[in-house]
Amino acid sequence: MLNFTVGPVMSGEAVRAIGGEQVPYFRTPEFSEVMLESERLMLRFAGAPAGSRVCFMTASGTGSMEATVMNVLTPADKAIVVNGGSFGERFVQLLQLHGIPHHEIKLDYGQPLAEEHLAPLAGQDFTAFLVNMGETSTGVLYDMPMISRFCRDNGLLLIVDAISTFLADPFDMEALGADVMITGSQKALACPPGISLIVLSPRALQRVEANHSVSMYLDLKLALKNGERGQTPFTPAVGTLLQINRRLRDIDAAGGVEAEVARMSMLARDFRQKVSVLPFQLFSPSPQNGVTSMLTKGVSAYDIFTTLKDRYGIWICPNGGELRDRVFRVGHLGALTTDDNTTLVNALLDVLKNAC
Amino acid sequence: MLNFTVGPVMSGEAVRAIGGEQVPYFRTPEFSEVMLESERLMLRFAGAPAGSRVCFMTASGTGSMEATVMNVLTPADKAIVVNGGSFGERFVQLLQLHGIPHHEIKLDYGQPLAEEHLAPLAGQDFTAFLVNMGETSTGVLYDMPMISRFCRDNGLLLIVDAISTFLADPFDMEALGADVMITGSQKALACPPGISLIVLSPRALQRVEANHSVSMYLDLKLALKNGERGQTPFTPAVGTLLQINRRLRDIDAAGGVEAEVARMSMLARDFRQKVSVLPFQLFSPSPQNGVTSMLTKGVSAYDIFTTLKDRYGIWICPNGGELRDRVFRVGHLGALTTDDNTTLVNALLDVLKNAC
Repeated sequence: MLNFTVGPVMSGEAVRAIGGEQVPYFRTPEFSEVMLESERLMLRFAGAPAGSRVCFMTASGTGSMEATVMNVLTPADKAIVVNGGSFGERFVQLLQLHGIPHHEIKLDYGQPLAEEHLAPLAGQDFTAFLVNMGETSTGVLYDMPMISRFCRDNGLLLIVDAISTFLADPFDMEALGADVMITGSQKALACPPGISLIVLSPRALQRVEANHSVSMYLDLKLALKNGERGQTPFTPAVGTLLQINRRLRDIDAAGGVEAEVARMSMLARDFRQKVSVLPFQLFSPSPQNGVTSMLTKGVSAYDIFTTLKDRYGIWICPNGGELRDRVFRVGHLGALTTDDNTTLVNALLDVLKNAC
Repeated sequence: MLNFTVGPVMSGEAVRAIGGEQVPYFRTPEFSEVMLESERLMLRFAGAPAGSRVCFMTASGTGSMEATVMNVLTPADKAIVVNGGSFGERFVQLLQLHGIPHHEIKLDYGQPLAEEHLAPLAGQDFTAFLVNMGETSTGVLYDMPMISRFCRDNGLLLIVDAISTFLADPFDMEALGADVMITGSQKALACPPGISLIVLSPRALQRVEANHSVSMYLDLKLALKNGERGQTPFTPAVGTLLQINRRLRDIDAAGGVEAEVARMSMLARDFRQKVSVLPFQLFSPSPQNGVTSMLTKGVSAYDIFTTLKDRYGIWICPNGGELRDRVFRVGHLGALTTDDNTTLVNALLDVLKNAC
């Protein structure tokens, strides 16, 4: 199968080879060294300020989103949260569940965030800002420099879900003044799902230390303490952590995060140019590099997903809810090439021909 | 490396082959079918009563222990908890953290649970009983039929951490009247770590439904609802779930849970007989099949672990805390053979010779 979903995505050969090996015992100095190296590489690739740390969570991205809300924020906070799709909605639900007062900026599906949404919220008593840098459910990339300026001007803690944008779209914690960055193993890291990662700035770390733990499994204090010696409090997905380490080292050797972002950008542009001959519309005027959302006309987006899967051996990403029949998504994350883009566009052409 | 730890353990070839493949997209009918089949096999292997369900959590065993405490119990409960080592201690900490009143039966390391511990607790207002069927940190197997009788006589909900005993020691939820069984992917299931599983009886399911959710990621209501159609609420460790499915089907084809338990029992007996010529003592009079804890004399248990790792390419399992230099553990879970036992005993003989 050729996989154009937004995760799990296709892994490179080196990562897959590790998946085929026995998983080693991990309470060893050898595994600790691997983890400490991964932390150093993650901090560098995220542009994290000096003194930042990384938590490696055996959990989906949602697990790390929840751990962040629980460990970094308290009911004394007042947060702004951008809700432009399923993942923004998830942040809202987490804030509700954990009793964090918040103001929701509700956007239409596919709508970019604009100055006009932020301006009325300036100069108030907000303390934090939560945003999915890429709202993966619609493929929208929010304007991070604009958000960064707003947070700096208003002294807000900036929490960024970069699950589908880290290594795919330009991002620099220090330049943006971001305090938390969350990502997952199965997006641009192109490893199997099962691990999510939280990068915490010194300001976020102070908050974690001062906070009261209400979960053992999602307790970042425990993760940070064990992480000092390259370990985790509980048995992690050891195999996936070894794959992440290999992938981080490979990215480093191939030119670092800039080269990887450039590759993702090239793949996205190549697909969008090739697909422009087909009668689909780009769903958002502000697409992220990792995923292209396409609006269909006269043909069910979900049927296209099913036909590509069953007849062509190609996965694209369907949408749920009200977008189910109108929007499909094509991911550009993972071990894909421009030739793969051509294969997909030809298959789409074929599907449309047979549908007419 | 030859791996005699208690997890991650060695996987068979079929499981490893899946680890080397691309991870498929999972919001498909095909993946749902796999998950529903895994649930059926898990229910059968656990001897779960009719109407039971399984939650597949992308989390370590501790994540599922916490999810159980949070979703099945409430502050209106009054629990008895057996604490004979690190994992009993973990249950105690989870009950404390989540405000569940409890009485702790504190045992010495390696000490079996006896009637005299239970008798004084009969006829009181307890509602639940939590036990690690095998206290993996010391290798003690608790007397489950005795615990079962006590719970039945006193109308207690029985919650069993079977993380290191499921498929290794005889266990039958219905026969024991157990309401919750927790296990993990990296023990006798012999898959990579990253998934833990919770089997819930109808009585436990009723409690979950009636309970208030205080975590999204560890919310069993969400897991159960998505599980009805063979899905999970969040992106799970898809690759590991496919490996678990393959392993469950392989166990089924090879004679089912009875044959697997017999194999584990045979491997444990074979090792204990071979190692009896060496100057170690069995640490517990009631060992579980999955692990043998050995007491050393005149030589550091931790040094034996290090020497076997660095010079012989063999991992055994060290202990932490006060047992660090006195006790090492040899696991029998996973793709091990009697020849591997011989290799280990010969290496131990060699280490002792050189230590003298």
